Amino acid sequence: MSDAADRSRIADLGLAPGGRRAIEWARRHSPVVDTYLRERLADGALDGRRVALVVHLEAKTALLATVLADAGAEVVVAGSNPLSTKDEVAAALVDRGIEVHSTRASGYAVWEEDLLAVADSRPELVIDDGAELTTRMARHRPEAYAGLVGVTEQTTTGVARLRALADAGRLPFPAMAANDAACKHLFDNRYGTGQSTVQAIMGLTNMLVAGMTVAVVGYGWVGRGLATYLRALGATPVVVEIDPVKALEAFMDGHSVATAVEALPTADLVITATGGLRAIGARHLDLLADGVILANAGHHDLEVDVEALAGAAVEVVEVREGIERYELPDGRGVHVLAGGALVNIAGGLGHPIEIMDLSFAVQGVGCHELARGGYEPGVHVISPALDREIAAAKLAAHGLSVDELSADQRDVPHGL
Amino acid sequence: MSDAADRSRIADLGLAPGGRRAIEWARRHSPVVDTYLRERLADGALDGRRVALVVHLEAKTALLATVLADAGAEVVVAGSNPLSTKDEVAAALVDRGIEVHSTRASGYAVWEEDLLAVADSRPELVIDDGAELTTRMARHRPEAYAGLVGVTEQTTTGVARLRALADAGRLPFPAMAANDAACKHLFDNRYGTGQSTVQAIMGLTNMLVAGMTVAVVGYGWVGRGLATYLRALGATPVVVEIDPVKALEAFMDGHSVATAVEALPTADLVITATGGLRAIGARHLDLLADGVILANAGHHDLEVDVEALAGAAVEVVEVREGIERYELPDGRGVHVLAGGALVNIAGGLGHPIEIMDLSFAVQGVGCHELARGGYEPGVHVISPALDREIAAAKLAAHGLSVDELSADQRDVPHGL
Amino acid sequence: MSDAADRSRIADLGLAPGGRRAIEWARRHSPVVDTYLRERLADGALDGRRVALVVHLEAKTALLATVLADAGAEVVVAGSNPLSTKDEVAAALVDRGIEVHSTRASGYAVWEEDLLAVADSRPELVIDDGAELTTRMARHRPEAYAGLVGVTEQTTTGVARLRALADAGRLPFPAMAANDAACKHLFDNRYGTGQSTVQAIMGLTNMLVAGMTVAVVGYGWVGRGLATYLRALGATPVVVEIDPVKALEAFMDGHSVATAVEALPTADLVITATGGLRAIGARHLDLLADGVILANAGHHDLEVDVEALAGAAVEVVEVREGIERYELPDGRGVHVLAGGALVNIAGGLGHPIEIMDLSFAVQGVGCHELARGGYEPGVHVISPALDREIAAAKLAAHGLSVDELSADQRDVPHGL
Amino acid sequence: MSDAADRSRIADLGLAPGGRRAIEWARRHSPVVDTYLRERLADGALDGRRVALVVHLEAKTALLATVLADAGAEVVVAGSNPLSTKDEVAAALVDRGIEVHSTRASGYAVWEEDLLAVADSRPELVIDDGAELTTRMARHRPEAYAGLVGVTEQTTTGVARLRALADAGRLPFPAMAANDAACKHLFDNRYGTGQSTVQAIMGLTNMLVAGMTVAVVGYGWVGRGLATYLRALGATPVVVEIDPVKALEAFMDGHSVATAVEALPTADLVITATGGLRAIGARHLDLLADGVILANAGHHDLEVDVEALAGAAVEVVEVREGIERYELPDGRGVHVLAGGALVNIAGGLGHPIEIMDLSFAVQGVGCHELARGGYEPGVHVISPALDREIAAAKLAAHGLSVDELSADQRDVPHGL
Repeated sequence: MSDAADRSRIADLGLAPGGRRAIEWARRHSPVVDTYLRERLADGALDGRRVALVVHLEAKTALLATVLADAGAEVVVAGSNPLSTKDEVAAALVDRGIEVHSTRASGYAVWEEDLLAVADSRPELVIDDGAELTTRMARHRPEAYAGLVGVTEQTTTGVARLRALADAGRLPFPAMAANDAACKHLFDNRYGTGQSTVQAIMGLTNMLVAGMTVAVVGYGWVGRGLATYLRALGATPVVVEIDPVKALEAFMDGHSVATAVEALPTADLVITATGGLRAIGARHLDLLADGVILANAGHHDLEVDVEALAGAAVEVVEVREGIERYELPDGRGVHVLAGGALVNIAGGLGHPIEIMDLSFAVQGVGCHELARGGYEPGVHVISPALDREIAAAKLAAHGLSVDELSADQRDVPHGL
Repeated sequence: MSDAADRSRIADLGLAPGGRRAIEWARRHSPVVDTYLRERLADGALDGRRVALVVHLEAKTALLATVLADAGAEVVVAGSNPLSTKDEVAAALVDRGIEVHSTRASGYAVWEEDLLAVADSRPELVIDDGAELTTRMARHRPEAYAGLVGVTEQTTTGVARLRALADAGRLPFPAMAANDAACKHLFDNRYGTGQSTVQAIMGLTNMLVAGMTVAVVGYGWVGRGLATYLRALGATPVVVEIDPVKALEAFMDGHSVATAVEALPTADLVITATGGLRAIGARHLDLLADGVILANAGHHDLEVDVEALAGAAVEVVEVREGIERYELPDGRGVHVLAGGALVNIAGGLGHPIEIMDLSFAVQGVGCHELARGGYEPGVHVISPALDREIAAAKLAAHGLSVDELSADQRDVPHGL
Repeated sequence: MSDAADRSRIADLGLAPGGRRAIEWARRHSPVVDTYLRERLADGALDGRRVALVVHLEAKTALLATVLADAGAEVVVAGSNPLSTKDEVAAALVDRGIEVHSTRASGYAVWEEDLLAVADSRPELVIDDGAELTTRMARHRPEAYAGLVGVTEQTTTGVARLRALADAGRLPFPAMAANDAACKHLFDNRYGTGQSTVQAIMGLTNMLVAGMTVAVVGYGWVGRGLATYLRALGATPVVVEIDPVKALEAFMDGHSVATAVEALPTADLVITATGGLRAIGARHLDLLADGVILANAGHHDLEVDVEALAGAAVEVVEVREGIERYELPDGRGVHVLAGGALVNIAGGLGHPIEIMDLSFAVQGVGCHELARGGYEPGVHVISPALDREIAAAKLAAHGLSVDELSADQRDVPHGL
Repeated sequence: MSDAADRSRIADLGLAPGGRRAIEWARRHSPVVDTYLRERLADGALDGRRVALVVHLEAKTALLATVLADAGAEVVVAGSNPLSTKDEVAAALVDRGIEVHSTRASGYAVWEEDLLAVADSRPELVIDDGAELTTRMARHRPEAYAGLVGVTEQTTTGVARLRALADAGRLPFPAMAANDAACKHLFDNRYGTGQSTVQAIMGLTNMLVAGMTVAVVGYGWVGRGLATYLRALGATPVVVEIDPVKALEAFMDGHSVATAVEALPTADLVITATGGLRAIGARHLDLLADGVILANAGHHDLEVDVEALAGAAVEVVEVREGIERYELPDGRGVHVLAGGALVNIAGGLGHPIEIMDLSFAVQGVGCHELARGGYEPGVHVISPALDREIAAAKLAAHGLSVDELSADQRDVPHGL
């Protein structure tokens, strides 16, 4: 432990008891990671392997780190964003002998140094988020990069970056697109982001959802989860899409459908979930209603173009914790939640534990697969059989089972 | 017209006025077929082409036939199932000069003859349902089969049959899997079967949905639509699945999840939607509660194994129109709706018009594509661009639009 | 039986077998009437009493008639509206010895005679619907009216009429407002009318509910049930109210709120549920969209002012069974379902059986209370204890129980 | 202002800027209090009147205080519970000249002194919550009590206490049961407690609602709001009731119904909302599942009998902020949120602003009515006309209107 403390850079080791409690709470609600994954890793494939873990550093992530360490891996941890690090959780990890480079209040420059410190531990395997570590290794630590055995990646955006590396002939190892596993994107993006985003917005604003008109920009899995929950709580979602098929699904799901130009003037709340940039940008500012609230549920901090808004404003005031009001020259005020960052993480608690239990099980299984070897360089997804195993483990934790198809139940196409 | 009447076999030409009204009502609620498709077909590609249309013969189908005929095609029509033919609609088609071979009360032997009569019209293009005409042509009319330019197919099951033909090297022309278009399966299977099945069950039974425990066997698009609507009406769906990922989605959608063995004893209603065979079969009979109602929403009449039930019963009584009660030796009674056939068609009105507007637009576009040529032999899907056009036409009919992505909104992965 | 046949006026005694099956189906789904009520009536209070039953004459009503007859009552039956009589059910009642005066196709003049024939049986107790029999006895059969021991009444409107009689000093006997019992209005108006109205509209139109904009005029229990179910099926209800408190509830339930003038131009479907007159009247005709569908779920045939519409129309055509299209001079067409009558009864199956099980249990208990005596002249409601007994019987039929309050669970206001 | 500071007891006047921002945020979302109530109070009825305001002291309450002060009242404020006081809000009130006696960290003994200090200001009018000030004045400050002109009361429990005083002949002035106004209990208890309780539980636990089995104990307005929102978020509510009518409503609303004994063993979460005592008490402890979470949404801290639980436990650990785990001798752990206090207030943000806008409008109108006089001693409710005015003001703030009944729309019972 003292070794880990020497190698680590954290805020205060004395915070460890609080972190331990938080990890224990996460463990209680993570049966798949704590049981299924733990058993799967017991084959020794990770024994003595150097694993870098760069994900938002809070209790759920820390649980994954401990399960990896219990399986024999030498785990080195950093946060995938400085603002999301929980210092007491970092302390608890160091206290149990895991090397950590992360503090909440350090800012982006120090965070970059932390990532390079992780790279310098020469990991064989990386569990990444947004490909933050992998791309930095490719650019700044070519030798360590060349030594990588494999990478598993959490997000759509990170997978896109890995694919870009592969297309450029610069991915000399196999990568696992955890995001593309059914147990990740079908649950994390829809139920996880859905609940946590609504919760964060309620928490930041103390406003009533019932009766709100909410422009939901983007009707992918995230937008669907959001619109479903908002409607269920009594709001009227107005879906803005670029794909007519998705827009038609939104319409038949009972939502209003409109262009941004049509939707914005009557929206009380606007939530972006496009995965792209500037979903709400300079050309939309004239359309926003006085008092509107803007929140982002998509990957990029740039879905709401806060820079454009700041350029147009005569004054910016923090009117409540996590809410800034931009006073526009014509007297309208526009409120931005959590600075336009992912509102469920930057302005809330992040995903519910049970969702990360699935997502981290996928990451852990992906890492284990890479450690066992046999994958070509390129971007892979865990097999459907493994995906089903994870889902079955989750169901089993709730005491639920699925049926098996009997021989006489298969459809035999009529003789031709 | 008199020519058409001479060539046709229908019940009674005098029924035409009623059929015309039904087609007109369908037209009013089919803006995509009546406007978008009509315009698309105006390029003359179908002019003078012989098109066979073999789908459930009722008003919505008849509308498609008239739009094809208006575009210059020589259309010959039969029903894809004898029991679903509406004689007055058939009469209306003949009355406007379209050849039809179909009557409701004729039985399966005559229906087979009707299909062969259609084959003998030597169609170039076939719009098929369940590949009923195509497979018969392959078997019984090889010369006509060899002359086919292309086939479009409505259902999952039919597409599987076409793929089997292709795999066997026996599909010498291109086929369009209409079912695989987004505008078909995303809407037809979920919203269309969902609403029409619930409606049919309410209509047949006059029972209250609120408070019912409903075993939904299968959680594909059909099962999802069903479970969503049933829950919304106050029922408690219990989802039976073989795929743990789908089962976990059901669980997080708020439904109960169980095996058939667990679910059946407390189910008031059982709906099968598996696409397979014997979802409720001989080994389940002992588990059914007294008074249970069995209904099928999947393709095969064999999802509920009515034969096994009949074998076990001491008596079968029709207790209400469309409801048969099987008295089991131990005193339990089991009710089967619509003889185990697709309950929304055999025991109800079939899909809502607006849904068939989408599905038939896909069929019409597919047929048009095949007529224009350029497709290799094998199974194809209409292009995503055409899919989006159809969805956009539907939205436009409701006065709705989608946004366009501006240049500054695309995600540029960070420089690598 | 032959006596009953001699005294009765029905369509055809030969239809009895079909009616028996229908009554048996209703019995299977009416555990409260068939068990709880049957046991309650076993005390002999109804033995030999003359009971007139004037409610829509179909299977559920007939079940009540048989339970009353089994308890020893001499039951005489007529329908509360000629169009809702099921001739085969009437036949089955006569076949088992109950006197019936009702045929479906007889028209209003004959129906009036049927009611007077029932009055002439000199009933002691009346189970009434809309106070149709009671008000006629007051007017046309004063002697028989004077001999009444008591009346139970099904509907809000009928109760209002009884109260008007009482206010005018013309109600010399006790009446039970069955409608005011919790087990009636909390369930019948909300879940019963809700489901059956939506079902009837789907059945008559074959249209898709998802995506519809529906003006719901009136947000009482009926309007709430309707709006809840429509929203659940993917429609967008727009609630029109005169009471701001109810309108605000609608708003927080997630519905749009508007005046009729605002709501009508964009409504695809308009459903009236006000309990008043001319909710859609002459002054609204200019606001209706071309193709709109009008349906009534409230008591009066006059909620949609069909007369005003007919006066404005240049042509009226039945475009589908149960749907008339009024062509207005400016080219718009307006569709009226079921002639503006209660759409769930005149255009559908009426309430689900399980709902009538509750409502008829209330009527039966009310009748029994009146037979036992002890009530002053005036309008009464069954006691809360009886109301709870009926609800408990329904729960028990589903195997459900409620808790009992223990002594230590009662709130003791802090010592003052 | 310096005068107010001299007379007040608060934590730190320097916190005022933060409090001002919070009040301003509340004001922006309180159009009824900020506009309608402000205008209504402009008649001078409160000018120079001494008003005591004893409600949870946070921004929404403070807004009411400022509106009363702006109308000329001399307002003296204390919190209705020490733990809910926001010190910065108290500071902001003092800073604008309003006398306050309240600090968050002071404990119950000091809080009692604060209430008596308010009593000693000899208020004429009291705006109370739980009758906390009124009952203390009755007991400890009889002279000041005798001088009261009137009291308005927020809660069901407080109204019960006032009624008990009246029944005991000890209420010599009129009281307004704000809770009994439609604009209070129809909205506050259902939507307000519903949303804020679910939000608080999500915030405290970081758990996923989808898939949870939740025992909802009590199906009054609070229980209904809770069950509706929980079901909408994917949970399965199991309703525990003592009233069969309410239980049957729950059943037809789609929820499970069970006794506590049946429901507890499988509940992941238990929420009490009975308004009584010991809904979960000593005799239930053996039934709780390991890991269960207990939360209270009812008035009394005693709905979950924490004392009994503590007596049975071998250890109590705070496992997360606001969550205590009681280790039972048999190894099960039971988690209690917010110490069993009202979880939405003690463990969350309290009601959404828009809900308190309605509730405080009712309180303000009630206070104004009492100031204008004309009410007899006893417990009153504001008139339905005032209730409707408040609802209409809320609708107007959202740009919504209701219809007016025209002369030809009233139901005229058929001539008798």
